[in-house]
Amino acid sequence: MAIPLLSFGGTDPTGGAGLQADSEAMRYFGTHCCPIVTAVTAQDTHDLHTLYPLPAELVAAQAKAVLSDIAIAAIKISLVPNAEIAVVIADIIRDYPNLPVVLDPVLSTGAGSVLAAQPDAIAEHLLPLATLTTPNQREVFALAGMSPGEAALDECAQVLLDKGSQHVLMTGTDSETEKASSDLVTHFHYYLEDGALKKETVSAKRLPQQYHGSGCTFAASLTALLAQGQSVSEGINIAQEYTWETLSQAYQLGKGQWLPNRMIQE
Amino acid sequence: MAIPLLSFGGTDPTGGAGLQADSEAMRYFGTHCCPIVTAVTAQDTHDLHTLYPLPAELVAAQAKAVLSDIAIAAIKISLVPNAEIAVVIADIIRDYPNLPVVLDPVLSTGAGSVLAAQPDAIAEHLLPLATLTTPNQREVFALAGMSPGEAALDECAQVLLDKGSQHVLMTGTDSETEKASSDLVTHFHYYLEDGALKKETVSAKRLPQQYHGSGCTFAASLTALLAQGQSVSEGINIAQEYTWETLSQAYQLGKGQWLPNRMIQE
Repeated sequence: MAIPLLSFGGTDPTGGAGLQADSEAMRYFGTHCCPIVTAVTAQDTHDLHTLYPLPAELVAAQAKAVLSDIAIAAIKISLVPNAEIAVVIADIIRDYPNLPVVLDPVLSTGAGSVLAAQPDAIAEHLLPLATLTTPNQREVFALAGMSPGEAALDECAQVLLDKGSQHVLMTGTDSETEKASSDLVTHFHYYLEDGALKKETVSAKRLPQQYHGSGCTFAASLTALLAQGQSVSEGINIAQEYTWETLSQAYQLGKGQWLPNRMIQE
Repeated sequence: MAIPLLSFGGTDPTGGAGLQADSEAMRYFGTHCCPIVTAVTAQDTHDLHTLYPLPAELVAAQAKAVLSDIAIAAIKISLVPNAEIAVVIADIIRDYPNLPVVLDPVLSTGAGSVLAAQPDAIAEHLLPLATLTTPNQREVFALAGMSPGEAALDECAQVLLDKGSQHVLMTGTDSETEKASSDLVTHFHYYLEDGALKKETVSAKRLPQQYHGSGCTFAASLTALLAQGQSVSEGINIAQEYTWETLSQAYQLGKGQWLPNRMIQE
């Protein structure tokens, strides 16, 4: 009997990222994905061609159909293409205050195409409901409403915690500075303890390719682990190791980025 | 390295049927699903609430993005919500005459809600391109354009072969007559040999529940097997055994139909 999870996200016709990535990673950890489509994309393993946000009421109808029938154990939110959909999702999940919520803010593709034009709406409506938010180093500035010249990464993380996310996991996967200077990828886990900012570091050996769907894999694994009562710190360690393994066994299906192999054999 | 398959179908927020079912069954057989969304549904494990067909040009954009980047080995077609999308799909796959094409005509839900209002368009545009078509006993009449009073099942199968499908697998899962009278589910495999109608029978023990996504599982497995060079007859046997196993290990996630467990352990 798989534990049911709800995932708000986009579709990806390559099958490398988006809801199919969630479904595979969640399945790996013994949970079942109930996929709520927020947007349909046309993309290949190089970049995005088309982003088609669904009507907000259709997003709500999908989620309500599931929530009235199935006892969901945790919620993941990734692609939120506009403010209207951010509001609809917030209105729905506010009724489930005891469920872990993982917010993976997918603001743009690796190649820079915009997926969510209103990060301020995501910050306003969804950060207050998040158990854990998993921005990369570019996304953390956008969610904090700051620019790299104005603030350091730690300050941005503090802003996200102040806005209500209980934990922030800032992933280093897309850091250009790091790529040039280190053979490690470093993620930072921030949270507040007695009002003070705490920061934990998780590092892993950098792998050689560009990958399509690594962030989805990481956040989906974390959702599955939190649903099963894992602590955020321990969940991050397990999800990071799993994601690394899926990337080390990745395959190049098209001519661009490699796809994680989420059904890895131990 | 997973073998890439293209699947045109609908999304299902329960995760039991539709493109998530395809992805899981295809993965089980060592292949990778590239999911092309034709329609988004809101449904639970009882029945359909909303059917939202996507613009035909968005269906085409998704498929073209994948086909120009990834060397697809077989194609599955399931939910085709209208004639315009049937034409778009036919236009695209006509360029790949050497690929196996499995057509799983999803015309209505088990509870009777209409998913494809124009079976004649599916018959006209897609049957001529199909290696194998997998209707149930209700769908075979609709595709043949006949009613149960007018023709027997064998005659309908002959019509579908005449319209160009190389094989027809008529599944017995939804046969009300059978349910009342037999503890077996019987599927019929029809094809032409030297112009004569051939019919093979595959039976399995009927399982006790109502299932959500059994047809998707069967057709997706078949697509994966044909992509790997399996014959249609042998593919039907293997896919039938796998599907039966996923149903025997099914779980009841909501309050209605049970969901196949497609990640069965041997």
